[in-house]
Amino acid sequence: MEQDEPTVSNVTINDSVDFSSDDFDKLLKPPRNNFHSYLNEDVSVRFPRTRTNHNATLSSASECTNHMSFTRLSSEAILPGAMNYLSANYESLDYDTCENQLLLDEERKKGYKFVVKKNVARWFIFLLIGIFTALIACFVDISISEASKLKYNSLKKCIDQCISQNCLWLPYLLWLVMNLVPVLIGSILVAYVEPVAAGSGIPQIKCYLNGVKVPRVVRIKTLVVKMIGVICTVVGGLAGGKEGPMIHSGAVVAAGISQGKSTTFKKDFGIFKYFREDHEKRDFVSGGAASGVSAAFGAPIGGVLFSIEEGTSFFKQSLTWRTFFASMITTFTMNIILSAYHGHPGELSYPGLINLGKFDEIPYQFYEIPLFMIIGTLGGVLGALWNHVNYKISCFRLRFIKTNWIKVLEALFIAVLSATLGFLMIYFIDDCKSTEEFSMDFPIQMYCEDGKYSAVAALWFQTPESSVNSLFHDSKGSQNDETLVIFVILYFLLAACTFGLSMSSGLFIPSLLIGAAWGRLVGSGLSKLWPNCEIFDPRKYALLGAAAQLGGVVRMTISLTVILIEATDGIFFGLPLIIVLLMAKWVGDFFNEGIYDIHIQMTGVPILPWEPPPLSNNIYASEIMSHPVVTLKTVENVGHIVELLKCVSFNGFPVVDPPTSDQEEINSYGRFRGLILRSQLIVLLQNKIYNEYSEYWDEFLNIEMFRSEYPRYSTIDHVNVTADEKTYNMDLRPFMNPSPYTVQHSATLPRVFRLFRALGLRHLPIVNDTNEVIGMVTRKDIARFRIWRHQGRMGLDELLISDKL
Amino acid sequence: MEQDEPTVSNVTINDSVDFSSDDFDKLLKPPRNNFHSYLNEDVSVRFPRTRTNHNATLSSASECTNHMSFTRLSSEAILPGAMNYLSANYESLDYDTCENQLLLDEERKKGYKFVVKKNVARWFIFLLIGIFTALIACFVDISISEASKLKYNSLKKCIDQCISQNCLWLPYLLWLVMNLVPVLIGSILVAYVEPVAAGSGIPQIKCYLNGVKVPRVVRIKTLVVKMIGVICTVVGGLAGGKEGPMIHSGAVVAAGISQGKSTTFKKDFGIFKYFREDHEKRDFVSGGAASGVSAAFGAPIGGVLFSIEEGTSFFKQSLTWRTFFASMITTFTMNIILSAYHGHPGELSYPGLINLGKFDEIPYQFYEIPLFMIIGTLGGVLGALWNHVNYKISCFRLRFIKTNWIKVLEALFIAVLSATLGFLMIYFIDDCKSTEEFSMDFPIQMYCEDGKYSAVAALWFQTPESSVNSLFHDSKGSQNDETLVIFVILYFLLAACTFGLSMSSGLFIPSLLIGAAWGRLVGSGLSKLWPNCEIFDPRKYALLGAAAQLGGVVRMTISLTVILIEATDGIFFGLPLIIVLLMAKWVGDFFNEGIYDIHIQMTGVPILPWEPPPLSNNIYASEIMSHPVVTLKTVENVGHIVELLKCVSFNGFPVVDPPTSDQEEINSYGRFRGLILRSQLIVLLQNKIYNEYSEYWDEFLNIEMFRSEYPRYSTIDHVNVTADEKTYNMDLRPFMNPSPYTVQHSATLPRVFRLFRALGLRHLPIVNDTNEVIGMVTRKDIARFRIWRHQGRMGLDELLISDKL
Repeated sequence: MEQDEPTVSNVTINDSVDFSSDDFDKLLKPPRNNFHSYLNEDVSVRFPRTRTNHNATLSSASECTNHMSFTRLSSEAILPGAMNYLSANYESLDYDTCENQLLLDEERKKGYKFVVKKNVARWFIFLLIGIFTALIACFVDISISEASKLKYNSLKKCIDQCISQNCLWLPYLLWLVMNLVPVLIGSILVAYVEPVAAGSGIPQIKCYLNGVKVPRVVRIKTLVVKMIGVICTVVGGLAGGKEGPMIHSGAVVAAGISQGKSTTFKKDFGIFKYFREDHEKRDFVSGGAASGVSAAFGAPIGGVLFSIEEGTSFFKQSLTWRTFFASMITTFTMNIILSAYHGHPGELSYPGLINLGKFDEIPYQFYEIPLFMIIGTLGGVLGALWNHVNYKISCFRLRFIKTNWIKVLEALFIAVLSATLGFLMIYFIDDCKSTEEFSMDFPIQMYCEDGKYSAVAALWFQTPESSVNSLFHDSKGSQNDETLVIFVILYFLLAACTFGLSMSSGLFIPSLLIGAAWGRLVGSGLSKLWPNCEIFDPRKYALLGAAAQLGGVVRMTISLTVILIEATDGIFFGLPLIIVLLMAKWVGDFFNEGIYDIHIQMTGVPILPWEPPPLSNNIYASEIMSHPVVTLKTVENVGHIVELLKCVSFNGFPVVDPPTSDQEEINSYGRFRGLILRSQLIVLLQNKIYNEYSEYWDEFLNIEMFRSEYPRYSTIDHVNVTADEKTYNMDLRPFMNPSPYTVQHSATLPRVFRLFRALGLRHLPIVNDTNEVIGMVTRKDIARFRIWRHQGRMGLDELLISDKL
Repeated sequence: MEQDEPTVSNVTINDSVDFSSDDFDKLLKPPRNNFHSYLNEDVSVRFPRTRTNHNATLSSASECTNHMSFTRLSSEAILPGAMNYLSANYESLDYDTCENQLLLDEERKKGYKFVVKKNVARWFIFLLIGIFTALIACFVDISISEASKLKYNSLKKCIDQCISQNCLWLPYLLWLVMNLVPVLIGSILVAYVEPVAAGSGIPQIKCYLNGVKVPRVVRIKTLVVKMIGVICTVVGGLAGGKEGPMIHSGAVVAAGISQGKSTTFKKDFGIFKYFREDHEKRDFVSGGAASGVSAAFGAPIGGVLFSIEEGTSFFKQSLTWRTFFASMITTFTMNIILSAYHGHPGELSYPGLINLGKFDEIPYQFYEIPLFMIIGTLGGVLGALWNHVNYKISCFRLRFIKTNWIKVLEALFIAVLSATLGFLMIYFIDDCKSTEEFSMDFPIQMYCEDGKYSAVAALWFQTPESSVNSLFHDSKGSQNDETLVIFVILYFLLAACTFGLSMSSGLFIPSLLIGAAWGRLVGSGLSKLWPNCEIFDPRKYALLGAAAQLGGVVRMTISLTVILIEATDGIFFGLPLIIVLLMAKWVGDFFNEGIYDIHIQMTGVPILPWEPPPLSNNIYASEIMSHPVVTLKTVENVGHIVELLKCVSFNGFPVVDPPTSDQEEINSYGRFRGLILRSQLIVLLQNKIYNEYSEYWDEFLNIEMFRSEYPRYSTIDHVNVTADEKTYNMDLRPFMNPSPYTVQHSATLPRVFRLFRALGLRHLPIVNDTNEVIGMVTRKDIARFRIWRHQGRMGLDELLISDKL
């Protein structure tokens, strides 16, 4: 918890920092309310909006009464799926460098050689990230491919036999079992071993890159669960893809390699210690995410764009450059391995390496532009609808599906449903085509005449990725239109149910599949209307429909365009793709937000948007800051520090010069000198960096002490301080950040926002005119102000903070 | 000039801000020098490094003695081409919003409807930018194409005739005249009408997007000169391309449209007034630059990446999104117009629209990777060499080619040289091929047997862009190797001489041409070594060589990859292209910087790199700030303001509470209250916003008053203030920026740098522990610290500031 907590809290204050409400108001010398009153010197005061109960009842924790204690106001119960809450359970990452004496000492000692070495190490790590991400992706790819082959081959044989023997219940049962077993494994892993591995992982990575600490998201355990989980999902026949999880995997690989240690395996290799800080780690993770995209789609450029579009706040050329390198290495490594797997070793340009298949160049004309726009619009509408359906299902889940075993049951139910729907469609729909008309690895004859096979089975008897491929590349008329209509409806609902299950599964491929199916329908309809027009090729419209549907669901723009171009090797369709994606985003944004943002908002992660909410210049820092603020003196009593850390859950403390006697009557705050973090204090206490004289220790002190604890510091309960030691003093000055960014109480919300967003801050002390700390702003304080704009209207929301999410 | 000027100045200080050196040192309470001394309370003081002469001789400008005057130290003469100077003549743009009462009033009045309206207007402007950029590009394109046809057609006829009549001097003379006339027009336009239109314009746009005001760079006059100039360059047969100028044109179009007024035509349409600030204008310009790339190469995605890679400091999704839209509209409009021009109206997918021609998919193998890397290395070396040659030529130009008429003469000389070299090559080299072997619009037989034509003429008798096309797509053996060797050498030198002439010309196409030629040589060499290997296709190697050479010269990475992919419609070659460009940048960076950076450094533009220099945490804000600082009181005497503005050239003034009597003994500075700009003060004086009571004016006051003057404010000399009025007071509080970012004197250089870079600041007041202003940091103060890293070593440079550049 950071220093924004008291926004909904009961506060009890000890003597040294006590003040009355009046004092506080005087102290603020608050900003002018409006122009006229300002000129007339009639200064009206603005209070913090959420300042409640700050001279309220005593806390129950009696030992803390000497200090402060904050117990949460039990706010009203939150409706499942409520979007107007921020969770208090998410911490911010800390991207601001603490330029204390230890860092300067290190710089002085190591010099430029160290800079060069660090730089070389960085490139090397990005190389490793690229390679390992590719290896993992290949493993997942090949496992899925082999297992699916096995599965569909035996199913096909069984069906072929049973058609004549009239025992179709047998393949149905077999199918059920073959879906249930992997789904059972996958869902148990996710539900019981590592719940954060559920879903695609993209929302989590997005939050992480935005600066929010999502617990356990980049651990190796998560990676393992994710890998096995996603294989189970796809092999289990669920309407999920492997793309999102691969991106997540890349991010974990990056975080793991760059830190040179693993918490899961309790192993520290002792290398890359200088990268053990949030800032460096974030850069690596953004490279890993890009590698993941590159692995998932064979799209190195799209990967870089993804990590820029979804993550970066401050674009750095050198980082982009290294990210690009890692993505490139990933594609390269995968091409080597997969070309060998496909039997064309060394042939990097083997067309089988293109994920969604190589596209023929079907010409398009000027007069098709309106059609492209209509497809985009349709994608926006259907995407928004999909998001809405998924949101409603998620609300249902929040309300009723709470325990782990129900989650597993739910996953099994969806697995049964998937198999059943598929089987019923194959059984009831007669859509017989010859093998020239559609491509399929395991053609099923069903009740078709000889030489013809069921086109419906082609849609269900493959991994979703292969189905997308078929819809993109099969010639005109490979399915009947009715088949496609029913398939779109069923798969639309199935996919909406699947995303959010306790399984590792992404939504890229299902969205593409839905879109490709209805896109093909549109194309087929057009070519029926104008049968002589060669231009209305269903394949082209399948591609555009897929893009439109995916764009309508995720609302990414430039990165998605490039990913699709790279995945289909089809720069030829760049222009139509751009048009379709633009329309889909515009139309979709009219109704609701992208699916990732919806899920992020439902979990209440305090994510910061790109820009401050408009028209918020009349909100001042003094209104959004949390106060009173808990400060430490430059030389502080050890006992006081220990008690304080036990009683409050803040993560950062302003360090102040104690107020001198003549200032005391004005206010009880000290002059701002620096900022120290809870984690730093704990390390100092653990290493007993204090005594009566505080002098003996400067030789063996160095910054490694802090780095070796990163990122999981002990809690204060693990620190042992004897009663004697509690009388000692600790000099905080060499360790604190001596000049963190601060703003005055009269700064506006957009100003504070820009500082936070651009520089990735965690704590921003608010000072008054004479540089005394009067409050603290953290991420949640500004993430609370959120603009909503739907259906052409807009307004400003003030979210509530709750620990119930 | 901003408040960094006194770094090299004689300073005379009046009573009210006078202080002795000792006072100042005391005041600083400076940061700890190192750990040990800090703990021993032995505080050693750090002075600003460049603080010279600050209580030195009186200025000669007698009327200013009551205030301050700064006359520059005449520093030693600068060697032509010196890279260690910053020019004092460049101003910073101001991206920080001034959140004063007027802005709040406007927000209050207009509400969310205004936000929506502004948003719609933004999209509309980006649409217009896209369309107009495309129109300009089409005009340039078609003009060049028609004029070149005319030129080479008549030349061809003349040669064909003269071969038999033995009068080859005639076509040579004709060629000379046809080169000289357009070059004369182009160079006179640039030299006499608008010198800023010289070159490619990319360095200028890069500086602009970085936050430096490059005078006249986005004016309509510049656009016209650039357009005509670039047509003259290409038609005049110089080794220059039209791509850079098109990017510049896009930027001008954007700046022009978004402001709804033109200074060149003295016309104010009265629309889009709310976009009249540096921040908004910059966003549009970045969109315009992207449109320009899109127009130049048919690369909408590459355009967006270009504007991100070269310009943006803080990436915003919404801006990227709109930029993408504009680029897309540009490609789209161009496709419509050009497909009609080529006789395929409406056929948007007509392959003739791809700028560098559609690429066949020539397979590549694993074992070619080392070859790709060698090509990249070669490109890096040759690119760095090219940059070095161009740098040396530029130094020569700075030293000897100073007056306009010599510049024109130089351009004419290069024009003669181009024609002569071309003619000599055609005359002396016998390289006869049949028309099946190479493509050419105007085949010249020269001394070849019937049915064969001179392959040398094919290289010279086309625009450079068409020659690139030929080298990319002609089949094996379209030229002899000797032809290519001589061509590479000659064109390499010609291009190096041409870039930097007083002509509008880019270097993309010449670099591509050089690279394509030597790439083809490599390919041809390889296929001679292994004649049975189909894989060593010269076309493939021509593409990679072109990429390598261009990458080695400009050192762009991801944007260049995408641009080349889009321009050749060849995502197939994505992987090799990436490898080549990575290597070229690495190797090139080992020797020197990219050509744009070299030229930027030669002009001394205070551009900020992406990241702060490493190991600079031991440099404190108090050392880099300029001081003493000139402050204004919250309510200030009008006469004082006028005198001050006349005497100092600063652009921003901290506004302070006047020191109260008991503080005065400690220091003579006031407490910081806000920041006001010179431009604001001048507008206030012009509108006479003052009187004895300063009350009457609040009704008609609004922010439009300031906007209508943007961006070219009057100087103080145009302000008339009567002697009476000089006794009046002006209340600055409603107009100043009440809470600009400030940092403490103990903040480190990287901290100040990050704030500047990420937020696009212009002025950063430095305050002491009690929030009193003790100095001011501007862009030049931090741009002075520049890291150099060549040949594996690195270090920190402190550039000097001079007005001689």
